[in-house]
Amino acid sequence: MIRRGFQVAARLGHHGALPGGPYILPRFSPASAFGSSMDSLVSRFCQEKTDLKNYTLPNASWCPDMLNLYHEFLEKTKADGWIRLPSFKSNRNHIQGLKLPLALTVTSDKSDCRIFTRCIETEGQGYEYVIFFHPSKKKSVCLFQPGPDLEGTPRFAHRGSLAAMIDETFSKTAYLAGEGLFTLNLNITFKNLIRVGSLALLNVDVEKIEDQKLYISCVAQSADQQTVYTKASGTFLQLQLEEDSSQY
Amino acid sequence: MIRRGFQVAARLGHHGALPGGPYILPRFSPASAFGSSMDSLVSRFCQEKTDLKNYTLPNASWCPDMLNLYHEFLEKTKADGWIRLPSFKSNRNHIQGLKLPLALTVTSDKSDCRIFTRCIETEGQGYEYVIFFHPSKKKSVCLFQPGPDLEGTPRFAHRGSLAAMIDETFSKTAYLAGEGLFTLNLNITFKNLIRVGSLALLNVDVEKIEDQKLYISCVAQSADQQTVYTKASGTFLQLQLEEDSSQY
Repeated sequence: MIRRGFQVAARLGHHGALPGGPYILPRFSPASAFGSSMDSLVSRFCQEKTDLKNYTLPNASWCPDMLNLYHEFLEKTKADGWIRLPSFKSNRNHIQGLKLPLALTVTSDKSDCRIFTRCIETEGQGYEYVIFFHPSKKKSVCLFQPGPDLEGTPRFAHRGSLAAMIDETFSKTAYLAGEGLFTLNLNITFKNLIRVGSLALLNVDVEKIEDQKLYISCVAQSADQQTVYTKASGTFLQLQLEEDSSQY
Repeated sequence: MIRRGFQVAARLGHHGALPGGPYILPRFSPASAFGSSMDSLVSRFCQEKTDLKNYTLPNASWCPDMLNLYHEFLEKTKADGWIRLPSFKSNRNHIQGLKLPLALTVTSDKSDCRIFTRCIETEGQGYEYVIFFHPSKKKSVCLFQPGPDLEGTPRFAHRGSLAAMIDETFSKTAYLAGEGLFTLNLNITFKNLIRVGSLALLNVDVEKIEDQKLYISCVAQSADQQTVYTKASGTFLQLQLEEDSSQY
């Protein structure tokens, strides 16, 4: 039986080799997939990078709720199995030594790119966030403080900025929990608005891994857990990145 | 019969008056709603603002596909009923003279806020987009060129940036087509990646307006319409903004 996940990947990759064609998802190769243990994924992802700025460190813009929860989870990294995920300027920094599928490689590279959720350099003005991940529980927590450049309704965070934060937290969680690399679907129900400068706590769980897909859920709520901002679900396609000795 | 839309709004607004409570959606007032014609909404939205920067004008970063389609739709504004929507630094500029519901007003205001999709000032580096709206067809087209600060997979636009662009196009369309003000749900299926610096064409349609909600769809595709990047749907809650003589 051809499984659903394979069908999706094959369809997505169908035109991948067309000269000059669109840059789309690669053909899925079941033979090479799912060979990496979560430990090795996490270990590679969280290696020390002394030459790169890690955006997860506290700064003066963080509100008290953000600081308090940050220190609470930092304590949990010492005994409870939680890991603070580093966050660099670009995803290429997170997958150094690995190569993207052929359809996604580029002949030239520019260093001026930034990952969207770190697009605003000024502290407190854009995205402030840190993600903690628990490997054995396959869950994450993201502490997210939207700045004034993420506005939608005046003085409240744009729903698109929250959607992007959810997708980014899903992406990192999906990759580490099971090599989920490509968002296939996001479904987000918005319930309440987040005031600019306040904290939203995103609780993310991998619900199941089936047919080469990861199914992930999120509840975003206030620091006191009395207000639900958003509920969301996402589906990610699994795809293993291969080793690459050259830097792309 | 209490309609579904009213129920949703009432639930969302349930805690709106709690002192120090969360900043959430207001109680819906059917008596005051749906009093504005689309013509007056469009007319107010598109009024000339000589003192504000309009971000929809072409700049040197626009790729040929973006420029060509821009001029094509600009021609359609002269005869075919299309309107180019202005785009300012903040949504407060779009709703001048109107007041937000009580639960969303603020006692102090800061001018350093930016609408999320205009958060990066440098031309070509972040969001480049322009939305054209057709009132009688209740549809929009958004020309979207993601810059290098909107990266996800190296050299491709972050799916969250596309989600935000879809939400923003939905929001403007929903407001002008039927006073849709609050995103209730977004459901996005991702099919192909958008290369940074290239054009995505978002075709947005209001499918129906029912029970005080607008149901909107989007297909995002390449300029040649050969590649579908994304299909999405959204639901928006209708809510009329009232006149306000004071500037909030």
